Amino acid sequence: MTSSLQMELTAAIRNIPDYPKPGIMFRDITTLLGNPRAFRRAIDELVHPYAGTKIDKIAGVEARGFIMGGAMAHQMSSGFVPIRKKGKLPHDTVRIAYSLEYGVDEMEMHRDAITPGEKVILVDDLIATGGTAEGAVKLLTQMGADIVAACFIIDLPDLGGRKKLEALGVNVHTLIEFGGH
Amino acid sequence: MTSSLQMELTAAIRNIPDYPKPGIMFRDITTLLGNPRAFRRAIDELVHPYAGTKIDKIAGVEARGFIMGGAMAHQMSSGFVPIRKKGKLPHDTVRIAYSLEYGVDEMEMHRDAITPGEKVILVDDLIATGGTAEGAVKLLTQMGADIVAACFIIDLPDLGGRKKLEALGVNVHTLIEFGGH
Repeated sequence: MTSSLQMELTAAIRNIPDYPKPGIMFRDITTLLGNPRAFRRAIDELVHPYAGTKIDKIAGVEARGFIMGGAMAHQMSSGFVPIRKKGKLPHDTVRIAYSLEYGVDEMEMHRDAITPGEKVILVDDLIATGGTAEGAVKLLTQMGADIVAACFIIDLPDLGGRKKLEALGVNVHTLIEFGGH
Repeated sequence: MTSSLQMELTAAIRNIPDYPKPGIMFRDITTLLGNPRAFRRAIDELVHPYAGTKIDKIAGVEARGFIMGGAMAHQMSSGFVPIRKKGKLPHDTVRIAYSLEYGVDEMEMHRDAITPGEKVILVDDLIATGGTAEGAVKLLTQMGADIVAACFIIDLPDLGGRKKLEALGVNVHTLIEFGGH
């Protein structure tokens, strides 16, 4: 069933054919971010399931996850934790390798960013193959986080990322989905 | 005069000596972001002067400006516009070169991200020499934005960035400052 919220958010996404390479339909969220009503509704919907729940930290994945994560952390009066590409954080970090479509990269967070047992929500704009999100989940788990959910505006279910996270025991919360790539 | 807010935010910053190189005291805001009360107060204080003013867009500078910018845009029911390093935005962009401490780099925004005449607030975590902020101001001005203010959590006034923006006619709003570099 498609709700009016889902229709509004889907209509606010810009679809860019053959980007970054032929055959790929890129889902550009910048048009949603730039639309005051769509952005407001998306964040409110991401936050909504956790009303009345104390969430200690929102962990956002660089760079687009910072936009949603900052908004969620402020709205929920939680702290915000940046998960960054390697070499960008100034203090003592923990690092993990993660799979990209081609090859691997590394992401980091500050070692003292999470206190063991803290309730954490992970957020990024989109889940596709789930390689980045899986790396972030493993990093947070390693730091002792209690991961309440992983949130994304967009799910590309054909690429299997949601199932990958659910296989790790993570509750996945997404707002809209697109078939194919 | 130092307010209790300024004391609280200043205490929430982590100072890292000799980073990224000897003689530099790095002001690490990740500890402020991770502190629910300090982050909440910082965003509320950044937003406060614009209560009752319609702001169309919050423009955040990659990457830390995305965290504050997302929170401000959601709180103010404004759109969010990412200003990114070159080559990261998927659609038609405008690009500008800007000065770094050593050398130059380029930043971009989507050509359709701002409609001429829109009221825009620029945000980043810190203003130092102001090279990045000056580039962002020029890019926004080129797109016809009416820049209401440029906001930063931290000002390093000895490095002259605030004066550089004020010389361009921009209203600068900062929360705390540190002397020296």
